[in-house]
Amino acid sequence: MTDVKFPQADRCGRIEPFHVMALLARAGELEAQGQDILHLEVGEPDFPTPEPVMEAARRALDRGETRYTPAEGLPALREAIAGWYDQRFGVRLSPERIVVTPGASGALQLLLALLVNPGDGVLLPDPGYPCNRQFLELVNGRAAKLPLAASGGFRVTAADLRAAWGPDVVAAMLASPDNPTGNVLSSAELGELAQVARERGGSLIVDEIYQGLVHEGEDHTVLAEAPEALVINSFSKFFGMTGWRLGWLVAPEAHVPALHRMAQNFFIAPSTPAQHAALAAFDPRTLEELERRRLVLDERRRYLLGALRELGLPVMGNPRGAFYIYVDVSGVTDDSFAFCARLLEQEGLALTPGADFGAAHGPHRYLRIAYTCDRQRLVQAVERLQRFMERR
Amino acid sequence: MTDVKFPQADRCGRIEPFHVMALLARAGELEAQGQDILHLEVGEPDFPTPEPVMEAARRALDRGETRYTPAEGLPALREAIAGWYDQRFGVRLSPERIVVTPGASGALQLLLALLVNPGDGVLLPDPGYPCNRQFLELVNGRAAKLPLAASGGFRVTAADLRAAWGPDVVAAMLASPDNPTGNVLSSAELGELAQVARERGGSLIVDEIYQGLVHEGEDHTVLAEAPEALVINSFSKFFGMTGWRLGWLVAPEAHVPALHRMAQNFFIAPSTPAQHAALAAFDPRTLEELERRRLVLDERRRYLLGALRELGLPVMGNPRGAFYIYVDVSGVTDDSFAFCARLLEQEGLALTPGADFGAAHGPHRYLRIAYTCDRQRLVQAVERLQRFMERR
Repeated sequence: MTDVKFPQADRCGRIEPFHVMALLARAGELEAQGQDILHLEVGEPDFPTPEPVMEAARRALDRGETRYTPAEGLPALREAIAGWYDQRFGVRLSPERIVVTPGASGALQLLLALLVNPGDGVLLPDPGYPCNRQFLELVNGRAAKLPLAASGGFRVTAADLRAAWGPDVVAAMLASPDNPTGNVLSSAELGELAQVARERGGSLIVDEIYQGLVHEGEDHTVLAEAPEALVINSFSKFFGMTGWRLGWLVAPEAHVPALHRMAQNFFIAPSTPAQHAALAAFDPRTLEELERRRLVLDERRRYLLGALRELGLPVMGNPRGAFYIYVDVSGVTDDSFAFCARLLEQEGLALTPGADFGAAHGPHRYLRIAYTCDRQRLVQAVERLQRFMERR
Repeated sequence: MTDVKFPQADRCGRIEPFHVMALLARAGELEAQGQDILHLEVGEPDFPTPEPVMEAARRALDRGETRYTPAEGLPALREAIAGWYDQRFGVRLSPERIVVTPGASGALQLLLALLVNPGDGVLLPDPGYPCNRQFLELVNGRAAKLPLAASGGFRVTAADLRAAWGPDVVAAMLASPDNPTGNVLSSAELGELAQVARERGGSLIVDEIYQGLVHEGEDHTVLAEAPEALVINSFSKFFGMTGWRLGWLVAPEAHVPALHRMAQNFFIAPSTPAQHAALAAFDPRTLEELERRRLVLDERRRYLLGALRELGLPVMGNPRGAFYIYVDVSGVTDDSFAFCARLLEQEGLALTPGADFGAAHGPHRYLRIAYTCDRQRLVQAVERLQRFMERR
């Protein structure tokens, strides 16, 4: 028999795993040994899917709603999402401009496939969400550098964007509220950033998957400032539907036909039970529960910010949204990955090292805390962190 | 305000919609006018998700199983799939080699991302499933030509594959049972095709999403002949779970780490409720029901083959699997798309024109019939087709 070979595409060598995965594997081993592990590394809220959404899912199953839907999503769900933009943000959208996708992951894939030829650059803030640059590998695009200044709390500015937008850049992708910093861009900032994209004849993609989780100041959408922006959103975070894998995008009408063709071919359709469940995501009962949960997150956030201040650990930027705080640990370690590994080993506390969020900003200086466990556990986490730092 | 531009990547101009979509839109209009439309164009079985699978889904919701799972799928589901290969085909697989994906669509995307650099060729049979060549656009690969001979019933042979395998080809992708022909490759044929890939130092991808739906002869997997083959499978067709969007792939161990990294980044994870539901797909109760359904499909198939013979319409190849028959209508029309459009208009019968399955073989000569409605409706369909042909 001829020898079998296993050649791979070049991108396989460039797509990195999440660094936190190695820590998670070790956390699993420690838990299997009976250790109590505090998980503040997970980007998943600790709340279950809201009950009205669960009820809608059960009713859909009882009705046998398990067949394919249109590729762009159920018309009723696209209308409900459009209604949400109107009700919450005063932004009127045609449902035609909304495509329901398999998670925000599916939305990001469609938008990069829409915009990016091989070799094209897409500006990605550094630090930023780690999957974005790997998605660019899928379409053979290039992650163009948009290094953010630590002195500005890793907040992206129009000047940063203008300076970084080289001739081969076709789009910039930003997130507000942001991961890992929790920064929230203002309407004015978003407007200025959109203007830079217009000047350069390129596209602005805004990841709004933490929309709704704004704890101070105004919750908004870039669409109010820049109707042409490409928006990624999700039922995962604010709406508490992570495992259902359902998201959406909003695009200008000019892009809708191409997006529909690609959605047909690449996904066939998003999950049918998930879509029927999500129809209840905008019910008043659901929204009331979600606001209650947001207040819980905000209380955790305030507690943690106070505790970090007492520990003498500087917080980057102004974490007003999502459920993340990005912490500068350069005063206590010169290697945040090793710091996280030892913290897990010695205290059973799991945090995410900065290396997962980029390279340009000295990732060994930072780590991310996700306040996705309850107050009692957070207090324990702070105690463990304090003990760990005192022992060093 | 600066003018807004909407530039798109070049692939947008090359990714085609399904031609049948135009017919479907028209069918919807006719239905809205109260016309009775017979749908034999849909690649979705008319059976609901089996009851044990629905029960498993309901129980999972009651347990609150709605959070992220591992990117490669629930360990229990990967073990169940491995057990299925052993039980059904006598093929022993490590569950490590199985990655659960968002539909077979997700599996195909991962495999092409794994194998294809920009410009690389992947041999795709023509006729064949239309999404495959669009997926190659996503990763900037090239659909290399593998035209199948009408005289051979559009059945792929090792000689075809060897002749078509040029220097820039990295992989070939075949389907058995096949869409649109229903052809089923024998173990010996699969073994010979795998040998060609080995000789060329490339990869063989086999789409087995219609596995289980084999109505004559042996149901099998290429993995019995070629353990190194890359296999795509799905819970959609045989297992009746289309709208749940859940599939899987089997890959050699050498590829598993890269596939895991990509699944983490591109999907985060497959749908959690769908995975819990699918755990019941291999239950004896489910399998008994699925075999009952297969017998129903086979009865429809035999009826249709007889009716087409009486109508004098030649059938391409030997439709022993899936739920498709590919029909040569060149004796009655020189444009199968126009034929389908008029058939819909005059008789309310929706079929899929050959143009959706490729270009090399004279797509205007063929159309696909999907026997995805019950016997009574099939009899009506044949009556309408006969009347339509007599009137011409």
